[in-house]
Amino acid sequence: MVKNLVAEFIGTFTLVLFGCGAAVLGGFGIVGQLGIAFAFGLAIVAMAYGIGPVSGCHVNPAVSFGVWTAGRMSTGDMLGYWLAQCLGAIVGAGVLLVIASGSPDYTLAEHGLGQNGYGVRTPAGQGSPGDYSMLSGAVFEVIATFLFLVVILGVTKSAESKFAGLAIGLTLTVIHIVGIQVTGVSVNPARSLGPAVWVLGDALIQLWLFIAMPMIGAGLAGCLFRVKLLSSDDGN
Amino acid sequence: MVKNLVAEFIGTFTLVLFGCGAAVLGGFGIVGQLGIAFAFGLAIVAMAYGIGPVSGCHVNPAVSFGVWTAGRMSTGDMLGYWLAQCLGAIVGAGVLLVIASGSPDYTLAEHGLGQNGYGVRTPAGQGSPGDYSMLSGAVFEVIATFLFLVVILGVTKSAESKFAGLAIGLTLTVIHIVGIQVTGVSVNPARSLGPAVWVLGDALIQLWLFIAMPMIGAGLAGCLFRVKLLSSDDGN
Amino acid sequence: MVKNLVAEFIGTFTLVLFGCGAAVLGGFGIVGQLGIAFAFGLAIVAMAYGIGPVSGCHVNPAVSFGVWTAGRMSTGDMLGYWLAQCLGAIVGAGVLLVIASGSPDYTLAEHGLGQNGYGVRTPAGQGSPGDYSMLSGAVFEVIATFLFLVVILGVTKSAESKFAGLAIGLTLTVIHIVGIQVTGVSVNPARSLGPAVWVLGDALIQLWLFIAMPMIGAGLAGCLFRVKLLSSDDGN
Amino acid sequence: MVKNLVAEFIGTFTLVLFGCGAAVLGGFGIVGQLGIAFAFGLAIVAMAYGIGPVSGCHVNPAVSFGVWTAGRMSTGDMLGYWLAQCLGAIVGAGVLLVIASGSPDYTLAEHGLGQNGYGVRTPAGQGSPGDYSMLSGAVFEVIATFLFLVVILGVTKSAESKFAGLAIGLTLTVIHIVGIQVTGVSVNPARSLGPAVWVLGDALIQLWLFIAMPMIGAGLAGCLFRVKLLSSDDGN
Repeated sequence: MVKNLVAEFIGTFTLVLFGCGAAVLGGFGIVGQLGIAFAFGLAIVAMAYGIGPVSGCHVNPAVSFGVWTAGRMSTGDMLGYWLAQCLGAIVGAGVLLVIASGSPDYTLAEHGLGQNGYGVRTPAGQGSPGDYSMLSGAVFEVIATFLFLVVILGVTKSAESKFAGLAIGLTLTVIHIVGIQVTGVSVNPARSLGPAVWVLGDALIQLWLFIAMPMIGAGLAGCLFRVKLLSSDDGN
Repeated sequence: MVKNLVAEFIGTFTLVLFGCGAAVLGGFGIVGQLGIAFAFGLAIVAMAYGIGPVSGCHVNPAVSFGVWTAGRMSTGDMLGYWLAQCLGAIVGAGVLLVIASGSPDYTLAEHGLGQNGYGVRTPAGQGSPGDYSMLSGAVFEVIATFLFLVVILGVTKSAESKFAGLAIGLTLTVIHIVGIQVTGVSVNPARSLGPAVWVLGDALIQLWLFIAMPMIGAGLAGCLFRVKLLSSDDGN
Repeated sequence: MVKNLVAEFIGTFTLVLFGCGAAVLGGFGIVGQLGIAFAFGLAIVAMAYGIGPVSGCHVNPAVSFGVWTAGRMSTGDMLGYWLAQCLGAIVGAGVLLVIASGSPDYTLAEHGLGQNGYGVRTPAGQGSPGDYSMLSGAVFEVIATFLFLVVILGVTKSAESKFAGLAIGLTLTVIHIVGIQVTGVSVNPARSLGPAVWVLGDALIQLWLFIAMPMIGAGLAGCLFRVKLLSSDDGN
Repeated sequence: MVKNLVAEFIGTFTLVLFGCGAAVLGGFGIVGQLGIAFAFGLAIVAMAYGIGPVSGCHVNPAVSFGVWTAGRMSTGDMLGYWLAQCLGAIVGAGVLLVIASGSPDYTLAEHGLGQNGYGVRTPAGQGSPGDYSMLSGAVFEVIATFLFLVVILGVTKSAESKFAGLAIGLTLTVIHIVGIQVTGVSVNPARSLGPAVWVLGDALIQLWLFIAMPMIGAGLAGCLFRVKLLSSDDGN
C-alpha cells in the first residue's frame, strides 16, 4: 500500500505540474488551448503507463470515488488514495510556482497557477476563462466527469484494457478542448485543490463546486456499472 | 439489447456534446480547426473503449447501415441503433445549448450548435463554413463516409481489431481536418440531426444531404466488403 | 492480387485526397502546418488499419521499393503496386480538384493541389514553400525517406508489429512537421505525381527529384535490413 | 553490440534532426510550440518502434544512466551507448545545419540549431526562450527527467510493455509543451550537445547544466526502481 500511495502522489503531482504548467508556462498565446488540452491528457497517458502498474493511476479523488461506487475498491484504500492525491497536487502546484517565479514577467497574483473557476472573469484572472455562469460550470463538470468515468470503468474491465492509458488520457484531452473556456476544466477535485491552496481568493471560495460536481458525476457512472447497465462483463 | 441502446445513446450524446461543443465553446479562434478535428476524433476514441465493449460503438446511423450492408448486423438491431443514436444526438445538442447559454456572448441564432451546411455562408452562420457548393459537399460526404467505413469494416475483422478505437477515431480526425471548411463534416446523419433540431432554418432544410450522402458512401463500402473485394478474412 | 491492387489504389487515393486536401481546403491559415502534418500521418494510420490487412498498405512506390530491396517482395508485385499507387494518387488529386473547385475563391493556377517543389517560390505558388534550395530538398528527401523506411522495415518484423500503423503514420507526421517548409514533403513519388499531373508547370518539371531521392533513401534502408545490420530477427 | 550502437546512432541522429529541425525549419511562427513538442515526441515514437527492437531505443545518455542505476544495464554497454548517442546527435545537428543553410533567410549565428539555454535571452537567440532563470531551468530539468525515467522504467517492465514507444514518446511531448519556454527542454545531454557543438557560445558554456541535471533526475528515478519502491514486478 505504501507503494500505491507513493505512486498516486507522483502521478497527481505530475498531472498538476504538467497540466497547469502548460497553462502557466505556455498559456493561450504560446501553446494554445489545444496544447493545454494535450498536456493534461498526455500527463495521464504518461502516468497510466508509468505508475499504473503499481496503483492503477487514479490520480483523481473523483476517479477513486467512482471506482469505489462501482464496488471495485475498499473504503480504506479510497481514503488513502485521496490523501496521497491531494498532497501530490498541492506539492505539484508549489513546484510549478517555484519554476514560474524564475520568469521576470510572472507574479502569482496576476498569472495564477491554472486554477479553476466559474462566473465572470475578474481582473486578477479568476473565474471562468470565458465568463460562463456557475450553472454552465456545474452542468459541464457533472457530465464531463460522468463520461470520463464511463470510459475509465468501461475500458479497464474490457478485452482492450491495455489501451486504458491511451483511451483515458485522450478522453481527458477532448474534455479540455471542449471545456477550458467554461471552467478551466476540473473533473478532478485534487487538480482544483492544488492551485487553490497557493492562489487563494476566488480559487478557494469556488473550490466547493469542483469537489462536489466531479464527485456527483463519478458516483453516477459508478452506479451505472454497479447495476451492470453499462458493464460488458456479463455478456448481453 | 437495452444495454446496447443505452450505450449507443450515451456514445452519440458524447460525440455531439464534445465534437460540436469544441466548435461552439471553443471555435476557430480558440481551439482552431485542428482542435475541433481532434475533439470529434477523440470523442470516438473515448467511446470506442468506453462503450465499445457493450454495443460496438457505432454512434452513427451510416456506420450501422454500412455494417448492415456488409451483412454483419440484423435489420431490427439497425433500426434500434438508429433510434438511440438520433435521440442521443438531439439530447447532446440540447445539453450543449444549456452550457453555451451560460456565456453572456452566446445566442443560438448567431452562434448555432455546430450544424452542417453547404452553399455560401449566411449572415446567421449557416451554410458551408468555406462557402463550398452543394456539389462539393455531396462529393466530399460520399467519399469521406465511404473511406470511413473502409477503415471501420477493415479493422474490426482484422488481427489488429483491438486498435479499432484508435484507428477509427483518428480517421474521423483527419476527415475533419480536411473537410470542416466544406460542410463542417457530417459523415453521420445523427450528428447533423442533433444540432438541426434546435437551430432549425437552413440546418434543417439542408439536412437531407447529410442523411443521404453518408448513407450512400457507407452502403458502397459495405457492398465492397460483402462481395469480399476488400475483406482480408478469406486470404488473398 | 486484384484485392491488393484495389487496396493500394484506395490507400494512395486517400493519402493524396486527405494529405493534399488538408493543404488545399485548409491550408497554413486554417489548419496550420501542424494540421497538414497530422492529416498526412493520420491518413496512413487510417489506411494501415483499413486496407493494411489486405495489401500491407504501402501506398508509396518508395516503400514498395524499400521492401523489395530488403528482399521481402517480388519484382512483379512491386510493379503492380507501383501502377495502382500512381493511379490512386492521380485520381485522388483529381477528386480534390473537383471539391476545391466548388469554392468561389479557388483557382488551380493560384492555389494548386499541394504539389511538391524546390527553389525560390514562384508567384504561382510553385517551388519550395520556404524558398529552400534544390540541395536542401534533395538532402531532406533522401534522409527522411531513409528514416521512414527504417521505421517501416523495423516495426513490421518486430514483436510490436500490430503497432505498425500508428508508428508509421506518426513518423510521417513528424517528417511533415519538420519538412513542409523545405519541399512540401514527398518521401513518396506517387504523392508527388498525383498533383503534378493536374498542376503541370514546375510541379512536373521538378518531379524527377521527388522520384529519385525517395527511391535512393528507401533503397539504402532496404540494404541495411538485407545485410541484417538493423534487423532484430536474428538476435544480437 | 555493433548493431546496438548503429541503432543508437541513428535514433539520436533522428531525434535531433526532427526535434531541433521542427524548431529551426518550422519554429514558433509556423508549427508553434505544440508542433515542436509533437516533433520531439513523435521522433521517439518513430525510433522506439523502428530501432527499439535492436537497441531498446535509449537515444539519451540520461536514459541509459537511469537504466544502469536501476541495475538493468552493464557499465560497458552504457559507455558504448553514450558514445553512439553523442555522435548521432552531433551529426544530426550538422545535417540540420546543411538543410537550413539552403534557405536564403537562415544564418547560424542568428537562428541557431534549437540549442538549450537558461537566463535572459540574448540578441543572438541564446539563453532561455522565455527568460527563465538558471534555478528554474535546473529544477525543471531534474524533475522532468525524473518523471520521464519513471515512465520509461515503469512501462518497459509492465504488462503493457508493447505500448512503451507510444507512452514514452507522448511523455516527451507533454514535457516539451510545458518546458520549451523554460530551457527549450533538454532532459537529454546528447540532444543538448549536438547543437552546442555547432552553435558554440552560450550553448556550449551552459551545456554543463543540461548534462548534470538530467543525469541527477534520471539517477534518482533509477534508485527508486532499484529499491523496488516504484516497480510493480514483486506485487504489492
